[in-house]
Amino acid sequence: MQSDRLWTNARLATMQDGLPGLGVIEHGAIGMAAGAITYVGSMADAPSAAETIDCEGRWITPGLIDPHTHLVFAGDRIAEFELRQKGASYEEIARAGGGIVSTVHATRAASEADLVASALPRLDALIAEGVTTVEIKSGYGLSAADEAKMLRAARVLGKVRPVTVRTTFLGAHALPGEYAGDADGYIDLVCGTMMPEIAAAGLADAVDAFCENIGFTPAQTERVFAAAAKHGLPVKLHAEQLSNQHGAALAARHHALSADHLEYLDDAGVAAMAAAGTVAVLLPGAYYFLRETKPPPVAALRAAGVPIALATDCNPGTSPLTSILLTMNMAAVQFALTVDECLLGVTRHAARALGLAGEVGSLAVGKHCDLAIWDIARPADLVGRIGFNPLHQRIWMGR
Amino acid sequence: MQSDRLWTNARLATMQDGLPGLGVIEHGAIGMAAGAITYVGSMADAPSAAETIDCEGRWITPGLIDPHTHLVFAGDRIAEFELRQKGASYEEIARAGGGIVSTVHATRAASEADLVASALPRLDALIAEGVTTVEIKSGYGLSAADEAKMLRAARVLGKVRPVTVRTTFLGAHALPGEYAGDADGYIDLVCGTMMPEIAAAGLADAVDAFCENIGFTPAQTERVFAAAAKHGLPVKLHAEQLSNQHGAALAARHHALSADHLEYLDDAGVAAMAAAGTVAVLLPGAYYFLRETKPPPVAALRAAGVPIALATDCNPGTSPLTSILLTMNMAAVQFALTVDECLLGVTRHAARALGLAGEVGSLAVGKHCDLAIWDIARPADLVGRIGFNPLHQRIWMGR
Ligand SMILES: [Zn+2]
Ligand SMILES: [Zn+2]
Repeated sequence: MQSDRLWTNARLATMQDGLPGLGVIEHGAIGMAAGAITYVGSMADAPSAAETIDCEGRWITPGLIDPHTHLVFAGDRIAEFELRQKGASYEEIARAGGGIVSTVHATRAASEADLVASALPRLDALIAEGVTTVEIKSGYGLSAADEAKMLRAARVLGKVRPVTVRTTFLGAHALPGEYAGDADGYIDLVCGTMMPEIAAAGLADAVDAFCENIGFTPAQTERVFAAAAKHGLPVKLHAEQLSNQHGAALAARHHALSADHLEYLDDAGVAAMAAAGTVAVLLPGAYYFLRETKPPPVAALRAAGVPIALATDCNPGTSPLTSILLTMNMAAVQFALTVDECLLGVTRHAARALGLAGEVGSLAVGKHCDLAIWDIARPADLVGRIGFNPLHQRIWMGR
Repeated sequence: MQSDRLWTNARLATMQDGLPGLGVIEHGAIGMAAGAITYVGSMADAPSAAETIDCEGRWITPGLIDPHTHLVFAGDRIAEFELRQKGASYEEIARAGGGIVSTVHATRAASEADLVASALPRLDALIAEGVTTVEIKSGYGLSAADEAKMLRAARVLGKVRPVTVRTTFLGAHALPGEYAGDADGYIDLVCGTMMPEIAAAGLADAVDAFCENIGFTPAQTERVFAAAAKHGLPVKLHAEQLSNQHGAALAARHHALSADHLEYLDDAGVAAMAAAGTVAVLLPGAYYFLRETKPPPVAALRAAGVPIALATDCNPGTSPLTSILLTMNMAAVQFALTVDECLLGVTRHAARALGLAGEVGSLAVGKHCDLAIWDIARPADLVGRIGFNPLHQRIWMGR
């Protein structure tokens, strides 16, 4: 097949399933036609193309994927951070107007255009590091109108920037003040009003919830998942971050794409995830920022063959992080992931966590031509260095 | 005094001593003539200038200062990192050719031009975050010719980039293989040959040593300091990183500019530093990368009034970090520094750690016009966010 464009003289970390390690091809080339990959292999055997780009021996990886973010929000929580560093307690911070309540307040007051404008610098920071696919959750609106507004803003971000955006409805993120003492009543609203409207408008690609002692119960989570199934939406879950609620096993029973955080995951949860093919999305930025001390059970996940993905968890309160490269380093340093695990975690396994295993996450014929071209000596440079961005060029859908 | 240039409509974090907190001036202006600051104050009272720049309400801080780096070196240690992540022991890594020995080997083999070329991307990463002054140590040459070559490369970096470079002779960094078993003989070389040659050539602004059970003894360190005094060079010390060698007190007795690392610093060391006015330079990147668990005694340093500075410690083995912004965040998160302490740590106190308190580190009349102009809502944004660079513009010596 004739290609529109051929990147040649490159070293490829294809991340292809079935190949060992990162699926490296030396002296490689990638062909593209109409935004899709048409050739991956040796440059010697590459077909001709209308345009050829000499990569001068640079490394190419798939465009990176950030599979868990809350990057649409208004306001920030830096004043709260400043208080925390002065030794203020959670109560003092809450009294000073901090916490998620402040983000909900600001997000409700913001227009859709405001939300887009404030999210763009965060999205641009990810794009500048080679991210070509990003998941964005709602969850700071907590009303039908405001949750939909957040998801519309996320969709707009995918139109105004060359990036694939996957949206997730996270109405069950926190209990809004007007439902204090009536979490079940709020879940009625999430399942009975918000989700039907959001599904009808095509605003969400998946549904998520926060199953935790300070979030929603497993029973409430189950109701959210049942509603999602009714609307044909895949699910994922914030699970086992601060305690073991057996959320990952619950998610696995509902064939969840992923269970995320997982610091308190137990062996039964690992086994359930492995059996269901649910991806473990680890969030080392939140672990770092909250000074947590119990890492997720990486050895058990690895032994059970659970695919591990990594994400920034970009959010104003617990992970104000907009670097996917630093996310990999933090996973290596804090969770003892290998270099290959880190790199697969932001490519092939991250794609699977978004239900996009057939579209992105590896360099393979038929997939989107999303590429990150790097000025590095080897892929490990992307993981081992801290606060350094060697991106040479980024290609999204062939451009 | 007529200024060449006036930055106006700015919010200033002057970092001036004697002013509370960060020395903030709202609705401020900065005047410059011949590379030096001629006015700092209210924009209403600002003198006229040949050129006026409207900062549109942006924040201005002094250009940032990284007072402890090893950013001149050849090779890298990423393969070693990859092995470490696979669970290899130090012995296995050493057998595979890792460790500081590999950096010494590569640095000796490199030309001065090679060293400049390989350091530039690291220096550029710091410059891109508003760094205008950077300290660079030798210490991977460990021979008279190779130590001088490293320091010449550092001087060249200060000529090919708009940045103030301060060089430090760190011959007593590690024992080269050819002196195995004869550390005192190597110290003879450091004091009797290297230092006189380096001092005569004007290649070093200060002298440093690594006082540690895996480095040099306090007695050997004392010999290095005595030689430095003979050549009129101020001293600083890698002290109390892995054990308490009472190095900080030793450094204080020699009126050291700074003692650096300090995880194992005791109360006597704190008191000695306070009495001598020695700055505590904390290196949170190394603490993070080495997964250390004993933080430096910040509360004791604070109580004793020891100025605290922060640095990247950029080096290939234990802190492959090239972000001064992330350094601040790591100091806040890991060492519980306040936001103001972090910001003073890379400005006023960092200047003092380099003996440059009169030249840089605050916005004050007569100092170098080194500015960082930021797209932020408040200075705390520079500390609280992770992996985000809001630099709008950087000015070095008025340009
Ligand atoms: Zn989250
Ligand atoms: Zn050092």
